[in-house]
Amino acid sequence: MNHFIAKSARVRSTPFTQRIEDYGVQSYTVYNHMLLPASFHGVVDDCNHLKKNVQLWDVSVERQVQIKGPDADFLAQLMTCRDLSHAKDHVCYYAPIVDEQGKILNDPLVMKIQPDTWWISIADTDVLLYAKGIAIGKNLDVEITEPNVNPLAVQGPKSFELMKRIFGEEILNLKFFHFKRFDFQGHPFLIARSGWSKQGGFEIYVDNDEIGLLLYDQLMKEGKDLEVRPGCPNLIERIESGLLSYGNDMDMNDTPLECGLDNFVSLNPDIEYLGKDILQKQKNEGVSRSLVGLLLDIKEISVTQHLPIMKEDRFIGTLRSACFSPNFNQCLGIAMIDKSHQILDQDLSLEINGKKISAKMTNLPFQK
Amino acid sequence: MNHFIAKSARVRSTPFTQRIEDYGVQSYTVYNHMLLPASFHGVVDDCNHLKKNVQLWDVSVERQVQIKGPDADFLAQLMTCRDLSHAKDHVCYYAPIVDEQGKILNDPLVMKIQPDTWWISIADTDVLLYAKGIAIGKNLDVEITEPNVNPLAVQGPKSFELMKRIFGEEILNLKFFHFKRFDFQGHPFLIARSGWSKQGGFEIYVDNDEIGLLLYDQLMKEGKDLEVRPGCPNLIERIESGLLSYGNDMDMNDTPLECGLDNFVSLNPDIEYLGKDILQKQKNEGVSRSLVGLLLDIKEISVTQHLPIMKEDRFIGTLRSACFSPNFNQCLGIAMIDKSHQILDQDLSLEINGKKISAKMTNLPFQK
Repeated sequence: MNHFIAKSARVRSTPFTQRIEDYGVQSYTVYNHMLLPASFHGVVDDCNHLKKNVQLWDVSVERQVQIKGPDADFLAQLMTCRDLSHAKDHVCYYAPIVDEQGKILNDPLVMKIQPDTWWISIADTDVLLYAKGIAIGKNLDVEITEPNVNPLAVQGPKSFELMKRIFGEEILNLKFFHFKRFDFQGHPFLIARSGWSKQGGFEIYVDNDEIGLLLYDQLMKEGKDLEVRPGCPNLIERIESGLLSYGNDMDMNDTPLECGLDNFVSLNPDIEYLGKDILQKQKNEGVSRSLVGLLLDIKEISVTQHLPIMKEDRFIGTLRSACFSPNFNQCLGIAMIDKSHQILDQDLSLEINGKKISAKMTNLPFQK
Repeated sequence: MNHFIAKSARVRSTPFTQRIEDYGVQSYTVYNHMLLPASFHGVVDDCNHLKKNVQLWDVSVERQVQIKGPDADFLAQLMTCRDLSHAKDHVCYYAPIVDEQGKILNDPLVMKIQPDTWWISIADTDVLLYAKGIAIGKNLDVEITEPNVNPLAVQGPKSFELMKRIFGEEILNLKFFHFKRFDFQGHPFLIARSGWSKQGGFEIYVDNDEIGLLLYDQLMKEGKDLEVRPGCPNLIERIESGLLSYGNDMDMNDTPLECGLDNFVSLNPDIEYLGKDILQKQKNEGVSRSLVGLLLDIKEISVTQHLPIMKEDRFIGTLRSACFSPNFNQCLGIAMIDKSHQILDQDLSLEINGKKISAKMTNLPFQK
């Protein structure tokens, strides 16, 4: 069912909102108290375009929590199970934020942008309040702020050509998950080779609204023959690619290990972070449930809450997000399933939200 | 411009979402990562109905942050500038949450529901993460959770008659901002005489989805001759009544004193809370800016971000929310204005977002 979104200052506009409305954005979601576009030409058309061309995404909602000061390194490490002890000042780190129970509170990219300054590029929870609370409680010497930084993602296979036209050949040398400053109109923008799709691209951390708008217009102009369009994180593309969404696929009831994020859970004895003992124990004993992919023999699905999954009248887990994939010609889902009921790559009959569906479980990301 | 809202599990549905969609909700906003209805028959019609009749509001978005344990009293007090030292277990307290700088992070109602347990009924920020951070940092003996509680507000002048029909005469003895448990179908629901309108009413803290839905249907059935309708917090009614909205009228850049919340800032030497020294100093020296009402000689306005206000080419503050009020036959606004430029109840010419407007400043709440 379609409903309108009611706007207010509480649901913040971005420096690019006027642009994307002029270009015909269809729908929004809200993320970090801010408008995030959700479709322009429909999710299927947007997906097809993204896979072939280049899109500009207004992802201002990726707010930066800036932690600055003598205790910044200590606080940044304390909040994440990722080992940041050797973090370099030109590399992005995917760093799940955890609590004292080892549960995930957010799954940001973090960047050490200066020797005493971190940017935590957050998913949809107020990490700033968590950081502030810990800093107050432990009396840390840090300053925690949300700077006026509004990321603009340039995504898709033609993003490389487009970015080269604006920033020069050198940008093509930027490695995946590396960042560096590049000039536009005399302003040095921090640019990372990153973004929430698997189609390649960059994220430009726009810290100047005015020059940011000039940059937006220049990207649209220079990209005309590359068929550049405004776009946004795409439900189909991200599920096909197995990109997890905090708040959908995982939330504060889950641990990183249950979400298959083992590579980002460090058990390095030299670092200290919250919930480490619990994650160490869970790692030793193994998880009792985890995220898997579901291939569903249906042509349509909409998930607006975690849906119960039954197998032979037993509750085995929840479906957390799903979409119809034109590429797979069936629906794909991401589900948290009890380990004892995980039977991979076999024909199964599941009951999802009360409806019988022929399905297969599979590892993530999906393979075609 | 009208845009659709994209739904997902991250933007949580409530136990009542299906009901309000069946009843024809038109638009939503998002609040605490959850759907909040914003209009049913248009904001003007909803407002007129609310002032005469009774409405059921799905305000599940008012999430409860539950703090339980030996250190719960200490933590609850530490986070708010309201004096909670004599809090009674049947009274609601409006208690601004503050940080170490005395800035407002949220403006909840808090209730001591058991000797060692508080409910913080939050506005739109993740207070749970703030409380968790402080508790971790100070190593406090508390358990902090978000229980499955979904408030249902019954608002409007006929709410008293409707609630009497369901819960009996005794509910009419409940005083403003008091709460008590009342039975429905054998389940004791916590009910407060409160709600985010000035039209009178109650908030039912629904902690059982199934019985909550029976209650919803029963309220709709028993209220038929009272012209009960589903409704929601109403932009016009709340501005006319001078009810402040966190995230719109105030945010983490403001102090409670700048927002006119002096009555909720305790300087009792016997209590300890964050930012107290700073608020004490600001109280002594006086604030340099504060919220005022604006009467605007225009017939239409939409505020989707804080809009700059100029007077004789000088920046004097920002307009934070506004609406056309049929009752005042002009637009009403809530603005943060420099003290030195506050000239009350005189004809002024202001420039708001670049547009010249004849206006008056006035104290809040608005008087007709």
